[in-house]
Amino acid sequence: MVKLDPSDGYATLINTFEVEPDEVVALTRILEDATETMRRMPGFISANLHVSRDRTRVVNYAQWVSGDDMQAMLRHPDAQPHLKAAADVAKSFEPVLYTLEFSSGA
Amino acid sequence: MVKLDPSDGYATLINTFEVEPDEVVALTRILEDATETMRRMPGFISANLHVSRDRTRVVNYAQWVSGDDMQAMLRHPDAQPHLKAAADVAKSFEPVLYTLEFSSGA
Repeated sequence: MVKLDPSDGYATLINTFEVEPDEVVALTRILEDATETMRRMPGFISANLHVSRDRTRVVNYAQWVSGDDMQAMLRHPDAQPHLKAAADVAKSFEPVLYTLEFSSGA
Repeated sequence: MVKLDPSDGYATLINTFEVEPDEVVALTRILEDATETMRRMPGFISANLHVSRDRTRVVNYAQWVSGDDMQAMLRHPDAQPHLKAAADVAKSFEPVLYTLEFSSGA
């Protein structure tokens, strides 16, 4: 189970892909495959794939121990084919690094 | 604790605010206050506030039981002052409704 807790101090990567609706299934499959590689890299905590209700965006909400771990993953040779495959299917993508500062659960 | 689990079937609202760096603290305070109101509304599961490392964006990653619950919140009179306060401080905001389809934890 993936949990959100500001006290963990993780780096959160929110990567938003814009995509044609008929490429959503292909893109999510590519990102699932990518996760199988990323999850073996140092500092990986979680990856969580979301599809927008209008099927024009896919978001990967990913947690890493640190921003440095996340950057090292991006530079890792094993990551390159996955990143390229996602970029080829998506219209655009925008990775942004965040810190989780506040959580309120029901 | 807030958890991510595709089998929950929740609606995920990812609301991205663009903001001047010197307004980040004011905006997160407004959104924390807003959460105190929202969390009493039907269908609220969680709100999670993130600040980008470059301090130009604030993201609320919020879970609701359903998209209808989330939409009802937006129309609720108690929500309006909070939504207006956030809109006044932010340069822009873009709420997008997602479904969590896949999670992989370490």
